[in-house]
Amino acid sequence: MWLHTSCELAFEIALPTPFVLMLRPRSGAQQWIAREEYRLTPSVPVIEFTDGYGNLCQRLIAPAGAFSVCTAAEVETADHIDQAPGAPFVDVQRLPDAVLSYLLPSRYCESDRFGLMAAEIAGDTPPGYDQVQAIVDWLQSHIDYRPGSSDLPLSAVEVNLRQSGVCRDLSHLGIALCRSLSIPARMVVGYLHNLVPMDLHAWFEAYVGGRWYTFDATQTVMRGGYVAIGYGRDAADVAVYSQFGPAVYPSSQLIQVQRIEAHATDPS
Amino acid sequence: MWLHTSCELAFEIALPTPFVLMLRPRSGAQQWIAREEYRLTPSVPVIEFTDGYGNLCQRLIAPAGAFSVCTAAEVETADHIDQAPGAPFVDVQRLPDAVLSYLLPSRYCESDRFGLMAAEIAGDTPPGYDQVQAIVDWLQSHIDYRPGSSDLPLSAVEVNLRQSGVCRDLSHLGIALCRSLSIPARMVVGYLHNLVPMDLHAWFEAYVGGRWYTFDATQTVMRGGYVAIGYGRDAADVAVYSQFGPAVYPSSQLIQVQRIEAHATDPS
Amino acid sequence: MWLHTSCELAFEIALPTPFVLMLRPRSGAQQWIAREEYRLTPSVPVIEFTDGYGNLCQRLIAPAGAFSVCTAAEVETADHIDQAPGAPFVDVQRLPDAVLSYLLPSRYCESDRFGLMAAEIAGDTPPGYDQVQAIVDWLQSHIDYRPGSSDLPLSAVEVNLRQSGVCRDLSHLGIALCRSLSIPARMVVGYLHNLVPMDLHAWFEAYVGGRWYTFDATQTVMRGGYVAIGYGRDAADVAVYSQFGPAVYPSSQLIQVQRIEAHATDPS
Amino acid sequence: MWLHTSCELAFEIALPTPFVLMLRPRSGAQQWIAREEYRLTPSVPVIEFTDGYGNLCQRLIAPAGAFSVCTAAEVETADHIDQAPGAPFVDVQRLPDAVLSYLLPSRYCESDRFGLMAAEIAGDTPPGYDQVQAIVDWLQSHIDYRPGSSDLPLSAVEVNLRQSGVCRDLSHLGIALCRSLSIPARMVVGYLHNLVPMDLHAWFEAYVGGRWYTFDATQTVMRGGYVAIGYGRDAADVAVYSQFGPAVYPSSQLIQVQRIEAHATDPS
Repeated sequence: MWLHTSCELAFEIALPTPFVLMLRPRSGAQQWIAREEYRLTPSVPVIEFTDGYGNLCQRLIAPAGAFSVCTAAEVETADHIDQAPGAPFVDVQRLPDAVLSYLLPSRYCESDRFGLMAAEIAGDTPPGYDQVQAIVDWLQSHIDYRPGSSDLPLSAVEVNLRQSGVCRDLSHLGIALCRSLSIPARMVVGYLHNLVPMDLHAWFEAYVGGRWYTFDATQTVMRGGYVAIGYGRDAADVAVYSQFGPAVYPSSQLIQVQRIEAHATDPS
Repeated sequence: MWLHTSCELAFEIALPTPFVLMLRPRSGAQQWIAREEYRLTPSVPVIEFTDGYGNLCQRLIAPAGAFSVCTAAEVETADHIDQAPGAPFVDVQRLPDAVLSYLLPSRYCESDRFGLMAAEIAGDTPPGYDQVQAIVDWLQSHIDYRPGSSDLPLSAVEVNLRQSGVCRDLSHLGIALCRSLSIPARMVVGYLHNLVPMDLHAWFEAYVGGRWYTFDATQTVMRGGYVAIGYGRDAADVAVYSQFGPAVYPSSQLIQVQRIEAHATDPS
Repeated sequence: MWLHTSCELAFEIALPTPFVLMLRPRSGAQQWIAREEYRLTPSVPVIEFTDGYGNLCQRLIAPAGAFSVCTAAEVETADHIDQAPGAPFVDVQRLPDAVLSYLLPSRYCESDRFGLMAAEIAGDTPPGYDQVQAIVDWLQSHIDYRPGSSDLPLSAVEVNLRQSGVCRDLSHLGIALCRSLSIPARMVVGYLHNLVPMDLHAWFEAYVGGRWYTFDATQTVMRGGYVAIGYGRDAADVAVYSQFGPAVYPSSQLIQVQRIEAHATDPS
Repeated sequence: MWLHTSCELAFEIALPTPFVLMLRPRSGAQQWIAREEYRLTPSVPVIEFTDGYGNLCQRLIAPAGAFSVCTAAEVETADHIDQAPGAPFVDVQRLPDAVLSYLLPSRYCESDRFGLMAAEIAGDTPPGYDQVQAIVDWLQSHIDYRPGSSDLPLSAVEVNLRQSGVCRDLSHLGIALCRSLSIPARMVVGYLHNLVPMDLHAWFEAYVGGRWYTFDATQTVMRGGYVAIGYGRDAADVAVYSQFGPAVYPSSQLIQVQRIEAHATDPS
């Protein structure tokens, strides 16, 4: 399906503040970015770089005063999410090098503290995709998904104590549980068509059966319409904006995802 | 200045053919991509990856029949090209690791064969920027710039024999001469505002005084309006399209670069 | 000075177990590895790869039964540790791309939770090296260094509560505090000549004044004799061995560091 | 089998000269470096880095006067070289990203000039491993292998004209022919047990059937005993020493490869 996505962030900046933004989705096997806009007002010098996870990041200094970041994209994304019950666990020894780091504990996914719990949830489920699905099922029945209930990222340990959370929180706990079973898992931040309420979204991917598969414990039925903006170990890696110095929050944030017709054939 | 660039390539494909395209300019210190479009007709699955030089490349299989690639961008680029007469040579020992590979000979820049000639051209010019300028001056007085005179890339040795060439040819010879003096040099392919006749363009950069500087032997006066699409050792690395299997040439190719007003502030 | 280092780990393995080892120190600006040995008994197939931090890692499956890893090196390392009181804070905007990830919170360094505390410790110390030194001074007067007091890595938050820890713990808290001040900081694991009691050691580096500087809150006077084995965000990245599946601990571990004469000139 | 390899290079340096050395073999799937020595006389500061092909390189300034580089290693390497007649051609679209650059022409492998010749040599051989074998067979019957016959690297075009060459030359032509058939190919420099006359050696690898396979047109029967030092597109990438400034040649060069017993189990 074709989607038009947009994210508009407005800030009131007291003092010139360094930002790292991650708001440029990349074309990949799962999505094609046919058109993209990225506007900064006022216009400031930007350095774009690729981080260690392959994300395109933009570094800049936001000047004092009103500062807005408006991005939009026209994306072709999958109508259906690949699912693969039975896809086998991949032995650590056979994982691609670049996947190995997604086995390690990270800031918000303390996989080193979930060994027993993960083993219990997995029970005698066959190793691999089905274990991840068992984790998702467990999240859906044990953790209350409450959009908008928290601002700051919580770690898997905290989410497990609180028994409720936003999409990011459920992902953190899901990722920590997967890694406890030696299944590589990573966080994705992006858009989801028809998300209610509309907002930026977070989900996770697990590496089983020789590739990454998408999982989302906030959705009872997996459907298409995902647009990935960034990948990383957890929310620490995939903040759509990181700012350094005194905290600055957006004075407004507007996210939109609309279905559109397949694009016309010629750019203008 | 703000530019609107576009590149439209049309192919007639006999058999399904793998392509690697390099047609997505990246935002960097020198340019900001505020809007971008990338349309394939018919639409086909694409895998985008970052090559060893940091370029975004698109891999796909062009289906039999008419196949077109239309890209466009809205770019803010420098009004003036930085020049730095007197900028010193950087000792090999102090070059950043990532710059070292631009000292080696490459397919079309046989720098290992130009030692004497480069020394002669440089004469007693102070090492660094001024040597590169001396090379550019020599190119302008000894190699006849003839846009459209060749299709296939020629190597520096061939260009030097032929004493004439297109922008790519002059760059190859300039790069080979720089590397002969242990000055890192790389090729850039992209657009240039007001290029006559309008076409894709190639120029080169040399690393002196601690950064990359732009040089272009096809222009008597350096002016702004450059938009880089790709960087590499030479034309082998920065083909805007590489195709595998029986050769396929564009049945039409349309390049446009227009000056535009600064963009409006909101994407639509 | 020249050092001979060795690390011998012996395991009793119940079931074939995948390991990732990080026990091959690399030559760098600060140390030169003139001789190195790496013996596995029994010998098993190994895949060596470079992780995202530049460390050489070895992947293998330890067979059931006795399994030992013996490594040794002959290293020239600095007699004195560079110190640079007054070295300035580097603006986020001017940090090298590869350094940026060391600003983010990580598994054991929850820098997002130490903003107020770091500001208090830093007080009106000039930004940069002196702030890091203030953090080290604070660690030395507030956190009790107790070698051997813990096995599992603790996070900065946990160390701060406990008010005591091993070298790894002090480093985690030091790193978290630095990052809270927007100073990039990373963990180093390796050897230290004359460490009492002798063991593997951990310390940290902070990026100020345009380069990485070494800090070690466990030592009252900084002296030479450090040999780095691995670098990373925290202990999650620089485990000298990570194993997957049921936990396996070394049945014996012997670390030695001896001063030697400068090597003879010819290898045999 | 276990091999002891050594390479001793002696230089007489007129003026301090920057060098990049590539003399540290890495452990990989095919070889395990159990012991290694690397001595510079006199001792000078060295910066080690990993190049774009994964090779460990050493950067230094050789001082005026006698300068020697002595390296040695104890290596376990395969007794038999994997061969896979029938292993299929891998579609460009399915090649790993990192393999793609080995399809491009490079300094000494002008694959863009060998399309017809490669097609003729391949004839109706099934695409993949068998085509590479056909190229090796052709090299053995058409290009005269003459160890010691040339000093400077020659390109595939030059080798083809000359109809004779050293190991490096045969590799360049073999690589160029493979790439002309859209088969990725890369150069390897290293040691070969029982090579006559003993010297550093060069061979090539081709990517078919989902992995790299070893080919060596200088050997009538493929046997084990290969130790790789470096990988690259061609000789420009894998020089064991590159030096910048006036040319410097070794005043002596001693290469040795001896079979040894399996190592004892403990390092000393």
